[in-house]
Parts: sequence; C-alpha cells; structure tokens
Amino acid sequence: MSQINRQILLASRPKGEVTPENFRLVETALAPLTDGQVRVRNHFLSLDPYMRGRMNDSKSYAASQPLDAVMIGGTVGEVVESRNDHFKVGDKVVGMGGWQEFQTVDATQRGVLQKVDTTHIPLSAYLGAVGMPGVTAWYGLVKIINPKAGETVVVSAASGAVGSAVGQLAKARGARAVGIAGGADKCAYVVNELGFDACIDYKQHGDVKALSTALKAACPDGIDGYFENVGGYILDAVLLRANAFSRVAMCGMISGYDGQPIPMAAPQLILVNRMKVEGFIVSEHMEVWPEALKELGGLVAAGKLKYRETVAQGLQSAPEAFMGLLKGRNFGKQLVKLVG
Amino acid sequence: MSQINRQILLASRPKGEVTPENFRLVETALAPLTDGQVRVRNHFLSLDPYMRGRMNDSKSYAASQPLDAVMIGGTVGEVVESRNDHFKVGDKVVGMGGWQEFQTVDATQRGVLQKVDTTHIPLSAYLGAVGMPGVTAWYGLVKIINPKAGETVVVSAASGAVGSAVGQLAKARGARAVGIAGGADKCAYVVNELGFDACIDYKQHGDVKALSTALKAACPDGIDGYFENVGGYILDAVLLRANAFSRVAMCGMISGYDGQPIPMAAPQLILVNRMKVEGFIVSEHMEVWPEALKELGGLVAAGKLKYRETVAQGLQSAPEAFMGLLKGRNFGKQLVKLVG
Repeated sequence: MSQINRQILLASRPKGEVTPENFRLVETALAPLTDGQVRVRNHFLSLDPYMRGRMNDSKSYAASQPLDAVMIGGTVGEVVESRNDHFKVGDKVVGMGGWQEFQTVDATQRGVLQKVDTTHIPLSAYLGAVGMPGVTAWYGLVKIINPKAGETVVVSAASGAVGSAVGQLAKARGARAVGIAGGADKCAYVVNELGFDACIDYKQHGDVKALSTALKAACPDGIDGYFENVGGYILDAVLLRANAFSRVAMCGMISGYDGQPIPMAAPQLILVNRMKVEGFIVSEHMEVWPEALKELGGLVAAGKLKYRETVAQGLQSAPEAFMGLLKGRNFGKQLVKLVG
Repeated sequence: MSQINRQILLASRPKGEVTPENFRLVETALAPLTDGQVRVRNHFLSLDPYMRGRMNDSKSYAASQPLDAVMIGGTVGEVVESRNDHFKVGDKVVGMGGWQEFQTVDATQRGVLQKVDTTHIPLSAYLGAVGMPGVTAWYGLVKIINPKAGETVVVSAASGAVGSAVGQLAKARGARAVGIAGGADKCAYVVNELGFDACIDYKQHGDVKALSTALKAACPDGIDGYFENVGGYILDAVLLRANAFSRVAMCGMISGYDGQPIPMAAPQLILVNRMKVEGFIVSEHMEVWPEALKELGGLVAAGKLKYRETVAQGLQSAPEAFMGLLKGRNFGKQLVKLVG
C-alpha cells in the first residue's frame, strides 16, 4: 500500500495581497525510493517573508516559485526511509522540504539535507534562531552594521525570528538595542523577555513624524545601525534619526512585497549622513554560516538567545498562517507543525 | 596706502533657489600682516555644488556657512607677502581662500596652504582634476564602486569636474564608462574627447521610463557601479538597470539642494539586487588624498586625464556663475578668474 503525501502547490500568482486561492492542496502517492534517495517526514515547516517575493513572476529575490509546484520552504524532520549510506532512519535533519508532509530527495547532493543535534537545541530552532533567520540576523548585524559598544542599533519586526536575534546579538556586543514592533504585547516581550533597551509600538505611531519623535526619545544618541525588515515609512522615520556614518542592513521590505510602490522619502539623507545602505540575501553568503551557527547554537543551548514561536497545526493551515505572517499576526517565528 | 580686498559675503539664506540677493559684495581694507601670516592673491576661485548645502541653516554637509561671512571656497593663487618662513613671495599655493581677491592666513597651521608645482600641471587644475573634485571622483570610484575590468560604470553630470574624472578613471581600470549629461554638446565631448563608451543626454529622456530605456541600450550588460552626482529621477532610472551586487557612490544630489523632496521611487531594488549604496564626503577621507593625487597628477601631467573649464571673469561674476552651476549651465569645472 503506497503512502499518501499531502502537498500545497502555488496555484496562481497573487495580484496584490495573497489569498487562499493562490494555493492548492493535493494528495500524491509516494513512489518507492531509488538509490541514494532519502525520505523525510517533515515535522515543522518554516514560513518566511521571502516566500512572498518568490510568488511573483517579476525579478525579485532569486528565482520565482514555479506555478503548480510545491511551495518552497525550509523544513525540519526525521528520516523515515533511506537508500543512502549517510542517512539512517531516525536521523533528525534540516532541509528545504517545502510545503508538504514528506520530502523525498537525492541526498548524495551535498547540502540538500543536514543532520542536526537535538540534544541541547530543540528541532524547531533549526528553522529559527539556529537556522536561516538566525544567520540572517547575524550577517546583517555583524557583517553590515558591525556595531561598536555604546552604539545604538534599531531593528524593525523586533519580536520576529530575525529581529529578536538582531537585538540580542547587538546587546551581546555592548550596543543599545531598540526594537520596533506592532502592539503592546510584542513590545513588552521585546523589552522584558528579550532584554532590548526599548521597543516602539509602530501602531501607536502611524506616520513618519510620530515615529521619528518616538525614535528620538528611544535613541537619545541617534541611530548608528538599522536592521530593516519592513520598509515604508518606518525606514523614512529611522533615516531622520540616523547618525553620521550609520549603516542600514536591508533584509526585508514586507510592505513592498505586494507590489505597491514604497518610495524612500528623503534619499539625500544617505549622502548628508554619509550612510551605507546594503541589501543582502543570506543564502548568498554561505561562507559565514558555520561561524554564525556556532555562535547562535551556543547562545540558544546556553539559554542566552531567546525566541518565541507561533505554531499552526497541520499542513492545511499553512496558507492562512502565511497570510497572517505577512500582516504581522504571528508572534515570533511562524511554523507549521506537520506531525502529532 | 592700504590695499583693498573685495569679498563676497553670504547676505541671506536661500529659500528654494539661490538668488543674487543671497550675496553681498563688500570692500575691505587689508590689514598689515602679523607674524606667521601669509597673504595670497587668489588667481582662481572654485565653485562647487557642495556650497549650496552650506548655504542652508539645516543639517547638511558639514557646518553651515555663517551669515555675513566670506563665502567658503577653494582657491589657488600666489603668495604676495609673507611673514612665514615656509612661504615666500611667488609661491603658488592652494587653499580655502573663499570668495575674495586676497586671502590672509596664519600659515603656521598645518594644511591651511599647500604649495603646488605648476611645471607640468596648470595652476587651475589643482581646483579640479588634481584637487577636490578629482579626489572625490577617485574616492567614489576606487573605494566604493571598485570596478572590475569588464564591468559597467555609469556617472551622472559626466562632463563636470567630478564626472569626467570618474569615467576616465573607470576606463583606466578596464571598465565600460557610460555618462549622463545635459545636452548634445556635452555628450559629444564626453564620448569624443574624454573617451567614454557612451553618453546619454538626459534632456532627451526626461522621465524614468525614457531614461531607463536609454540606459538599457547604453548598458547591454546592466549597471555594476553608479556614481551619483544629481539624484532625482536619474537615480531611479539607474536603479531599474542595476545588476546584482552593484554599488552606488552617492556624492551629490544637486536636485535636492534647494530643499524640495526628491524621493527614491523603488528603494526595494537595493534589497532585490543586493546593492550597496554609500554616501561620502571626500574631506572626511584625507588618508586617501596622497594616493589619489599622485594618480590624478600623473595622469594630468601625461595628458591622459582630460578636463574642461568654464571660467567666469572677476569676483563680481561669482554669484551668477554659481547659480548657473546649480542649473548645469557650466561645461566642466566652474572657476572664477580673479586676476588679469
């Protein structure tokens, strides 16, 4: 009796906001493995803002997601069947399994699956603080912002998987960490649980002027580094408080993924303040992953890098959870739990 | 009989466009020198876009120009009187003499006056290709854009003092150099005299779409480096043709100096293309000046770095020449000749 794999495909490209109709859930029979292949039962699927860019046909981050193919996505899971000497049943692995319950891959290709150690680090953390979001935070903070002790680092989407790591890594380097997040509960968490020096609720400061006033209060010595996760008026407000020689790591611009234009109001501030603004995609900097993961894994195992997860249950919940992520409804790393 | 010095002061700060009423010409008696002082007769005054920023009261490049003080500006001239052992009458010098016929300075302060050699390099070149504009071009091109052979470098205001050096330095490094300039005569000069590979007349391509189409034709392999002298829709058009990992050196944004907002239409392209955008002011990088001036001086002396000058006659012509510079009416380096 062949087993059934449930999968979510990209059914159509969004025009503006993502809708449930952009996705289609299908059931597919699992074929027998061939030599070299490994079958993984995915325990957790990672939902990330970059997926929105992949859903477009236009030039965006890396390649477009093909239509009628399984949605791309990071996964952690357990090997349930193997015809590959390097993987045995029961191994915990991280990979790009996509929005589906089972992943069948030729694991002879280097890097397709990575075994992970869950002795001191929970399996799901390899999709968050000790995975792509954590390394994203590490790269932007360490390689672009590179804060000196005493400098002020601001990060938007501060309670999210990337933002929460940015601030904690900044604090570990002696910098002042100021978050921007949506809602009093997220801001309280960022300050009280994650240890940021301050957090601004952008929902209480809905335009450039109000937000820049709040930033002035939270950053009395100005802003030396900004880790950009959202774009739009938040970036404009930060630029108004940027110090000379400040650095902006551009990691995400969620508010632009739906295709609407989001101009930068005053780009001349980049010149006036002699700033450096740099965009990056962490998958293009594989050379830093070992160093970054070593620090991140050590901090998580020691309880010094905290994170929160929002977990949706079952594959069928992925589209709605993803739409919620794009609207900031998640609190911390957005996962979909596919087992149990 | 005491000699008379004619000076131009900042009479008022411009509201929007600069007008003649923002300046005031005064005559002042020259006082006898004190120990350590040197008197220079200024032969040429340099007019540069950065002066517009200094005329504002607001936060801009460095300090504001005080009201009722002599307008700041680079000058070259000849020592006419000296009570300083390091300078003798007849020495040719470069300094920040300002908008006046005579400069009286305490030359014991290091760096206030620099002696220059006019054997192989014309005196006025020390205000252009072998001076601040040349080093500005060198810094942005070498330290920020850092083109590899075969890459494409675009520069706006390409026939100007900075832009013309940017393209020629890029060509010297094996890159493709594409200029943007205003008018057929300037574009012909940029290609035929300066040796750029192409030059686009922005006056023939007056919006983002038209200019980006022209850029596509002139840069078939996309744009790897952009030296930004103007801002506004030209920057937007360049971003639409920017390659992955391209670099933008932000040196000037003339179109923004009058205070009107000039938004960047699509800042998300910085992220999508993983770009680096960096603003700089060359006076903050004095460490590169010796290396830059050595290359620039060698090229000018050898006839391999060409430049053009627009020379206004007499101190009283400086305000109008400056207003023309801000509107792009000059052709090459804008100077005011104060002698003969």
